[in-house]
Amino acid sequence: MNPPELCRLSARTQRELVARGELSCEELLKVHLQWIEAVNPEVNAICTLVPEEALEQARAADKRLAGGAEARPLEGLPIAIKDLVNTRGIRTTYGSPLFRDHVPDTDALHVSRIRAAGGVVIGKTNTPEWGAGSQTFNTLFGATATPFDTTRTAGGSSGGAAAALAARMLPVADGSDLGGSLRNPAAFCNVVGFRPSPGRVADPARLQGWSPLPVLGPLARSVDDAALLLSVMAGVDQHDPLTLDTEPGYFETSLDSDPSGLRVAWSADLGFLPVARSIREVFEDSVGVFEALGCLLEEAAPDLRDGPDIFQTLRAHMFLARYADYFENLRDQIKDTVQWNTRKGLEQSVLDVAMAEVAHRALYRRVVEFWQRFDFLILPATQLPPFSKELDWVREIEGVQFENYLQWMEICTVISLTGCPAISVPGGFTAEGLPVGLQIVGPPRCDLEVLRLAHAFEQATGYAEREPDYQGLSEH
Amino acid sequence: MNPPELCRLSARTQRELVARGELSCEELLKVHLQWIEAVNPEVNAICTLVPEEALEQARAADKRLAGGAEARPLEGLPIAIKDLVNTRGIRTTYGSPLFRDHVPDTDALHVSRIRAAGGVVIGKTNTPEWGAGSQTFNTLFGATATPFDTTRTAGGSSGGAAAALAARMLPVADGSDLGGSLRNPAAFCNVVGFRPSPGRVADPARLQGWSPLPVLGPLARSVDDAALLLSVMAGVDQHDPLTLDTEPGYFETSLDSDPSGLRVAWSADLGFLPVARSIREVFEDSVGVFEALGCLLEEAAPDLRDGPDIFQTLRAHMFLARYADYFENLRDQIKDTVQWNTRKGLEQSVLDVAMAEVAHRALYRRVVEFWQRFDFLILPATQLPPFSKELDWVREIEGVQFENYLQWMEICTVISLTGCPAISVPGGFTAEGLPVGLQIVGPPRCDLEVLRLAHAFEQATGYAEREPDYQGLSEH
Repeated sequence: MNPPELCRLSARTQRELVARGELSCEELLKVHLQWIEAVNPEVNAICTLVPEEALEQARAADKRLAGGAEARPLEGLPIAIKDLVNTRGIRTTYGSPLFRDHVPDTDALHVSRIRAAGGVVIGKTNTPEWGAGSQTFNTLFGATATPFDTTRTAGGSSGGAAAALAARMLPVADGSDLGGSLRNPAAFCNVVGFRPSPGRVADPARLQGWSPLPVLGPLARSVDDAALLLSVMAGVDQHDPLTLDTEPGYFETSLDSDPSGLRVAWSADLGFLPVARSIREVFEDSVGVFEALGCLLEEAAPDLRDGPDIFQTLRAHMFLARYADYFENLRDQIKDTVQWNTRKGLEQSVLDVAMAEVAHRALYRRVVEFWQRFDFLILPATQLPPFSKELDWVREIEGVQFENYLQWMEICTVISLTGCPAISVPGGFTAEGLPVGLQIVGPPRCDLEVLRLAHAFEQATGYAEREPDYQGLSEH
Repeated sequence: MNPPELCRLSARTQRELVARGELSCEELLKVHLQWIEAVNPEVNAICTLVPEEALEQARAADKRLAGGAEARPLEGLPIAIKDLVNTRGIRTTYGSPLFRDHVPDTDALHVSRIRAAGGVVIGKTNTPEWGAGSQTFNTLFGATATPFDTTRTAGGSSGGAAAALAARMLPVADGSDLGGSLRNPAAFCNVVGFRPSPGRVADPARLQGWSPLPVLGPLARSVDDAALLLSVMAGVDQHDPLTLDTEPGYFETSLDSDPSGLRVAWSADLGFLPVARSIREVFEDSVGVFEALGCLLEEAAPDLRDGPDIFQTLRAHMFLARYADYFENLRDQIKDTVQWNTRKGLEQSVLDVAMAEVAHRALYRRVVEFWQRFDFLILPATQLPPFSKELDWVREIEGVQFENYLQWMEICTVISLTGCPAISVPGGFTAEGLPVGLQIVGPPRCDLEVLRLAHAFEQATGYAEREPDYQGLSEH
């Protein structure tokens, strides 16, 4: 079975049909709900569905439009919210059995912005327990597959979101990214995941207000649709001390641009990371695309060799802040990797943490210097293609063994440290037909510029248009 | 001896005379240097003086103007830089005997901005060793006095700057503030010290890039002059991850405003701090001034009771990052309070630090909620008047005993945690004739609004115009 044509349209087109009165929000919702019913069992992307509530929202939107109101930016678009994010009246588990029946009283800020923009919240997208690790599985809902091979993981932690988009269950979805959680699943599912600059999407809920590591951002099937969702999610809120001044409408602009003459640094491995041969091959083709676009290419990267240690230390400290209480009192109800990460936070010394902060600051400075010489940096978004969803974390790439669940994703984690906006766009396919993500990184706060270059790459390649084999998804 | 009339003029007026060609930069400099010679021995505000180098700068500025160039914002104004801040070719000791002969190769960013704006750097202002503690003394240069009673401290850590301004040795001066170092000395010297929002004055040199606690800011004899210097110091620099987008010219605007109708919360003690009776009495008069200005007054404050513990933990962690190496290897060459603070950083646990970060975040949130109900908060800037410069730190206020050198200044330290801009303006005098500072705090990033209210208060009271007894300063 193929998806209904409506589900294959871009978010902007779906919204345009609604705005022009050619499609009701109710119809758009129902078509999506039917298709979700057909493919979600195999993909397992949406873990909680609230069709009745969604129907009410869609009907309210139709009524609004019928009354002559102008269509809002996300008018009628079905969206599901990452299950790490609070949704008023909708079960929110954080992937943890401890929150199996947790129903928040309030929406996270960006959820309320999505609702206010006309988005129709239909449920929640699956995530690993507490969002930890770029593999979406948990004991409540099981594992989420990439629609391109349902024996393989969708990546994570925004895995449910990316898989739902790729399988045409949703036109846009939100996500979050501490060490790659918007970029990795986008890469594994052949969609777009954008990690904006810290503070671009104000997040009043962050537990450590001045950490630039956790950010919220959009996923979509095209850069243009990601920008649409970002234009709604972005904005100032003084409850977030890192909030960036962002003019209303800043992202409501054309992404068309001429990339010729841009100075683009490229690196397949940042000079020190193991990267699968299949990824390298596809990445090299991408470098050629930027050359064809007229960019000035040079193999170069900032020195991020101390990044993995810094990231591990700061992450463990963050896990300590978040989970010390659970670790002390409910240890057997948190998964082993979160236990390990929290224990690491307890066992490292205050000096380790202080020195990691200082080293982080020095790394940031080096990267700012790098931007004197380059406008962008391109990298693979993952170090290997999607792997078996039976595997909790990757133990080895190209002969390099890993000791913990974070090491296989360092091509994303160290970029998080830089404070730079970074996007994963569809970057081609391995010989096996598995999707590969291209990561584009730009200077701090140059979110729009990153979107523009990604858009140019997307237009030049058409990789984003490749769809999964729907027969394999819906026939089970 | 009284100061030359030129030295008593405001910075804006001095600059205006230069801009109109009625005064040469060289003459302005020489008049100041002569007066410094007369009063600095008693006040001990300027610890390093580079008259020849300053003369070269002044002559270069005169030549520039003679060539028809337009006067820059600080054209010809003599300024001395806090000795915690690097100055190219000028000894910079950080108040530490370890850096007795340290001459940096480069200027700090804001120093280069001051130079580019025509400021004439004449030397360095005294500071406590490593800037630690609101009492300006060190083994290299001794103690700095408030010109209002030279047996008493100028406060700190920008004590040299504040005392130099009060004694009319300089028209403007830079400073920095972690736990009150711009506000406390301003209060003790009857001048203005403004702690801007974190990131307003980009500081690429900060060791822990995402901490909102250490900031740079201006001191001056009036709010208007502080705004002048801030307009030069402020601005974006991507090397500082907290840098705030600040339009060029943002602070080059009139500070005149109508404060009537503003909702001003007032608290003499934040509900939990010991405050000397003499300070309370003067502060109560200030409350009356705001009432007379038409503000809507209410006794209220955000709940900052956990602030002192949070501040102590985060500060100790910061000292660990900065001084662990000295503490390990050169302990006998750092002063006892810095040793104590670094040891505290080593001895507290990673969980203490993580929980302080979480509590800090919660405190920030409470304060943002407070700004829903109020536009400003007014407080005393210090909990007692200037004390003997023989006393390293205050052991007791109104019967409350203190255990460490930070506790007597909590009315400033806890405000630092809020991320809010805060100014100390001349707030009146005790019966003994000692200056008292009024602290005005506004919502995050509302720097201009704080300056405006402070300006209105200053205009209404005239406290800033009271000068020290110059006879006592110059006769020794």
